[in-house]
Amino acid sequence: VNKIVECVPNFSCAKDTQAVEAIVQVVRESPGVKLLDYAPDNDHNRTVVTFIGDPEHVAETAFRLAKKAAEVIDMSQHKGGHPRMGAMDVCPFIPVRNVTMAECVQLSRTVGQRIGEELWIPVYLYENAASAPHRRNLADVRKGEYEGYFEKIKDPQWTPDFGPKAMNARSGCSVVGARFFLIAYNVNLATDRMDIGQAIAKKIRFLNGGLRFVKAMAVKLEERNQVQISMNLVNYDKTAIYQAFEMIVMEARRYGVTVVGSEIVGLVPLAALIGSLDYYLQLEHFSMDQVLEHKLSE
Amino acid sequence: VNKIVECVPNFSCAKDTQAVEAIVQVVRESPGVKLLDYAPDNDHNRTVVTFIGDPEHVAETAFRLAKKAAEVIDMSQHKGGHPRMGAMDVCPFIPVRNVTMAECVQLSRTVGQRIGEELWIPVYLYENAASAPHRRNLADVRKGEYEGYFEKIKDPQWTPDFGPKAMNARSGCSVVGARFFLIAYNVNLATDRMDIGQAIAKKIRFLNGGLRFVKAMAVKLEERNQVQISMNLVNYDKTAIYQAFEMIVMEARRYGVTVVGSEIVGLVPLAALIGSLDYYLQLEHFSMDQVLEHKLSE
Repeated sequence: VNKIVECVPNFSCAKDTQAVEAIVQVVRESPGVKLLDYAPDNDHNRTVVTFIGDPEHVAETAFRLAKKAAEVIDMSQHKGGHPRMGAMDVCPFIPVRNVTMAECVQLSRTVGQRIGEELWIPVYLYENAASAPHRRNLADVRKGEYEGYFEKIKDPQWTPDFGPKAMNARSGCSVVGARFFLIAYNVNLATDRMDIGQAIAKKIRFLNGGLRFVKAMAVKLEERNQVQISMNLVNYDKTAIYQAFEMIVMEARRYGVTVVGSEIVGLVPLAALIGSLDYYLQLEHFSMDQVLEHKLSE
Repeated sequence: VNKIVECVPNFSCAKDTQAVEAIVQVVRESPGVKLLDYAPDNDHNRTVVTFIGDPEHVAETAFRLAKKAAEVIDMSQHKGGHPRMGAMDVCPFIPVRNVTMAECVQLSRTVGQRIGEELWIPVYLYENAASAPHRRNLADVRKGEYEGYFEKIKDPQWTPDFGPKAMNARSGCSVVGARFFLIAYNVNLATDRMDIGQAIAKKIRFLNGGLRFVKAMAVKLEERNQVQISMNLVNYDKTAIYQAFEMIVMEARRYGVTVVGSEIVGLVPLAALIGSLDYYLQLEHFSMDQVLEHKLSE
């Protein structure tokens, strides 16, 4: 049984295309991993890289990426719209196949320690790898950003998990951790009224009493003249796609609004699709092994 | 883009385990193909073998299988409950990925010709490869079976497509062709009344005015005390799983009967699952390339 881990590091560069290429090239040249995607965002001056492979090769590649980022990025010169605190700003490990969350937590600790000790960059563990509850949420860890961390790092509440106890002026700090696969899922409504969209988003999301693993907000689609409920499903195993969809249908009904369509943005694991089809077709004992493509990828 | 064809030959042996092993071994030893399954049925004295690979290697393996079957099976001694007319009784080629039906038809013609000319076995083309409408349906071609074919082969309507114009007493004839992927799909009803099941099956199936690519019959599940609508979906691209399911829900309603569950038996292509999930979630522009496992199998 081949183990597969996904890794989605974010780097604080985009406009410097040579730096981006140098970083992506690390993935291309590393054995045992496959580059799935990379997306430089010039407004944010930030690049998201997605690659997969077996745990050992993914860990080695993640470390090489942190090293390359430290070489080609100077945080003291960085400007961009997205919150950030380091050259390799954040690096999550995500279980994809035959891998537990515990293994990914261990992986993030191993890689985090190497970055701290070998590259002399302060490292914080987050999400499922967090060493304390107040460090779980990425937004909380990142508050103050690169500029603010020269002070924040001295606060005993924010002593790094690995590496030096003082800021690395060139590379900043890195946030490393383990989380579940995140599905970006949007549902489009037959209305242009943002107040209705916002009311529905509130009923859906965890924050306001909705589904445990759903983050949601309303967005106006100007060219379609429709309101969209834009969601992150952060644990599709526990809160499935169909639950989010059907709950929106149910809430929209109160306003006489119907659902026009929905869209999955980016990658989605087969198990998340089957989990929802299972519900609609009332499938009895269906197994992933019955999917032809799944057998082919083994 | 790697092309994938599935091949599901049926052999007239099962009780002779040495013969079965010799046949399966051919697939195991052939390069470029992967054995997915083999299922000897002693009551029918018949073994179904499933393998996949690129078109060229699948074609070569299919020919080697016909040759091995001719070596290890003597049809003049064969007894079994299932209709049959040859050692390698039937051999369909099925498009799975990046392959057209036309390519599979051509493949079946190439293999059929080799079997006819090199092994001196009469070959009939069927389904999408059929050379005449009355040869399309396998049951029509097979009527008379091995024993009857010594006469039937002399009928100008039933001149073989390839090979000798007279019966091969040892190996019989082979039926080779191309068809779509077949999904075995069952829906279980909250009733034990076979008359209701039969009435629903009639409304669903093509034969009696139902869905174009659905074969259906009612079956009693004794241990569950339920009636099942047992179906073959013979072109999931044109008649999707959800259509069969929802039409049964709709017909059952007339009798106050609900659907307890459904099951997919054996393998199913990812595209068939997505085709149905698409409907329920009203997905907009979803692509197979977004499925993680699909990317892995490329």
